[in-house]
Amino acid sequence: MTKPCRDVAVIGAGIIGLGVAWEAVRRGHRVTLIDPSPASGATRAAAGMLAPVSELQYREERFLELTRESALLYPAFIDELANTGVETGYRSEGTLVLGLDPADRLVLADLRAAQVSHGLTVDELTIREARRREPLIGPAATGAFLVPGDHQVDPRQLASALFSALAGNARLLEGTASGLIVEGGRVTGVALDDGSSVSADETVVANGLGAPALASLPVALPVRPVYGDILRLRVPAHLRPFLTTTVRGLVRGNPVYLVPRTDGTVVIGATQREDGRRAVSAGGVYQLLRDAQQLVPAVVELDLVESMCRARPGTPDNAPLLGRVSGVEGLVVATGFFRHGVLLTPVAARICADLLDGKPAAPEHNAYRPDRFGKGSS
Amino acid sequence: MTKPCRDVAVIGAGIIGLGVAWEAVRRGHRVTLIDPSPASGATRAAAGMLAPVSELQYREERFLELTRESALLYPAFIDELANTGVETGYRSEGTLVLGLDPADRLVLADLRAAQVSHGLTVDELTIREARRREPLIGPAATGAFLVPGDHQVDPRQLASALFSALAGNARLLEGTASGLIVEGGRVTGVALDDGSSVSADETVVANGLGAPALASLPVALPVRPVYGDILRLRVPAHLRPFLTTTVRGLVRGNPVYLVPRTDGTVVIGATQREDGRRAVSAGGVYQLLRDAQQLVPAVVELDLVESMCRARPGTPDNAPLLGRVSGVEGLVVATGFFRHGVLLTPVAARICADLLDGKPAAPEHNAYRPDRFGKGSS
Repeated sequence: MTKPCRDVAVIGAGIIGLGVAWEAVRRGHRVTLIDPSPASGATRAAAGMLAPVSELQYREERFLELTRESALLYPAFIDELANTGVETGYRSEGTLVLGLDPADRLVLADLRAAQVSHGLTVDELTIREARRREPLIGPAATGAFLVPGDHQVDPRQLASALFSALAGNARLLEGTASGLIVEGGRVTGVALDDGSSVSADETVVANGLGAPALASLPVALPVRPVYGDILRLRVPAHLRPFLTTTVRGLVRGNPVYLVPRTDGTVVIGATQREDGRRAVSAGGVYQLLRDAQQLVPAVVELDLVESMCRARPGTPDNAPLLGRVSGVEGLVVATGFFRHGVLLTPVAARICADLLDGKPAAPEHNAYRPDRFGKGSS
Repeated sequence: MTKPCRDVAVIGAGIIGLGVAWEAVRRGHRVTLIDPSPASGATRAAAGMLAPVSELQYREERFLELTRESALLYPAFIDELANTGVETGYRSEGTLVLGLDPADRLVLADLRAAQVSHGLTVDELTIREARRREPLIGPAATGAFLVPGDHQVDPRQLASALFSALAGNARLLEGTASGLIVEGGRVTGVALDDGSSVSADETVVANGLGAPALASLPVALPVRPVYGDILRLRVPAHLRPFLTTTVRGLVRGNPVYLVPRTDGTVVIGATQREDGRRAVSAGGVYQLLRDAQQLVPAVVELDLVESMCRARPGTPDNAPLLGRVSGVEGLVVATGFFRHGVLLTPVAARICADLLDGKPAAPEHNAYRPDRFGKGSS
């Protein structure tokens, strides 16, 4: 059986749009990827933790299946990009989770019980064992856990690798989609703000927080901006390697993480703000530096090379809007990935590509249907 | 008596070089100003406090005369730039000095006694009076003093205004000076790194920390980099005006200042580091945000728009290297202004221009002679 080759328009070249476009190309479709400023939104800020286990603390247990599935897809996803020659920063050293005070330790111990009950591997370490792995852990930490299954990727590098993989194999259109073209209940392409249009058998809406503004969208997409401040720091030569694993922590109830890159930088993140402020928050930067140094005091010895703010696309239940809209042909939605866009890219790409291939939606993905909050009109 | 019109080369277009060039032009000289990247060093970072009184705390009492003289010259200096049409951000609302804990208050009270003994005006306020002036002062402050004579300017705007004033009246050469041209004990111009040269009757060395690297310099100039981290923040609309006067404080022994600009931004600075690290220090940013919010808690509500590091040119006694070198004709040195380059620009410009006009050095300026540490060879 040969699959049909279709014209696919993908709106949005963040990590999700790039991943979907690439998988669509690999399945033989003709892809046009539309974005005025590729990989410049949440993708540019993201730390790139691939952490289905430790992300459980955010009480999104019901889509653990999806995050685990995507984490399992990651090694092959990265392997398939290897021949682009572009690094992706994929690292599988695991994640160290630290609690600062006894209350933080207790919360993490309770969380571990929940994680273990889901069949996940979380090993409790003594502080001495933790410090043997990461000598720069400070004296204030009281609890330590190792999550071998939580890895990381560098989202900026991954986006570059996907771009390289797409170059020559897809049409990259640096324009702004203004809306969908809808004819008789079927989406037939994309209208651009310069008056031009792209015809398509299938259109994938993957432009994150920009999605609700698309004209003629046949469904209300309830995404909201959840702003986050995130820092990039450079480790001076005498302190390298600084950290060898990702360190996440709970510091007097505040979550913070430190993600070491192979290039000698460290990402420290991230606040969550729904205050509508698009600029870097002074209070956010302060909080990140304060809490990170509680776990790893040598943070103050690093160079601060970037302070950034971006918005994640949150949804009412913090699960993605992923799949087809009931009664609408030619449309696939892939937005609302909130904190998990990088982790969920391989599985989202697979789900979308299956739909583009004409397969029916899998019942286990019904919980992510983009019209689950009602179709409304945006 | 007509003054001689001379060819003057000024190396360095930071605030000092710009000020000297402008004064030289006003006195009728033909000026060539040489800098590959004008106003991009310490000038770009400087907060622009014109604070001869509160700067006394840094134990540089012996050049209070010079800083006061320059502060008194500032209004006319600014007035003369008014017809460029470029704003300078000059504000004369005075400076509020706050102490956090009782020990800080005591240090400031002792300092006030020293300031008053020098004939300076420093008024002790109650915290209530201070808060009446600045309602956002936090509950932790225990001591408050008002210094009506300490003002501010925006160094970036001031540099732009000086540039405008010079345009068409001086030659602006965006090249890099590699050394001096010396013939028989007389400096006769500047060699550039592209092999070209600029002939001059008088050469002014005003390139800050770059000065010691000039070839054929007939004096060792002992300037060292004193790095500083400094932040620029934007006040959201609902918090404006935030502050109306410059606030300086001592927070558990650490000095910090908040300088409000008329454009709705606030400058918070500045650390002093001699660690050789040219990048923004994470620990420095943390310390500034921590201490500033002790004085004005709403700091955490501001947007952080810029974190910057620059080096100030320090000297062994922290006084400038300003004047002629004994036995060397055709050379004037103006560097080593450390924390006081912006404040001292008008007086440095006047002193240099007097020397360019052929006047003898004033005896009261002997303490700043660039060869006071010995002539050495650099």
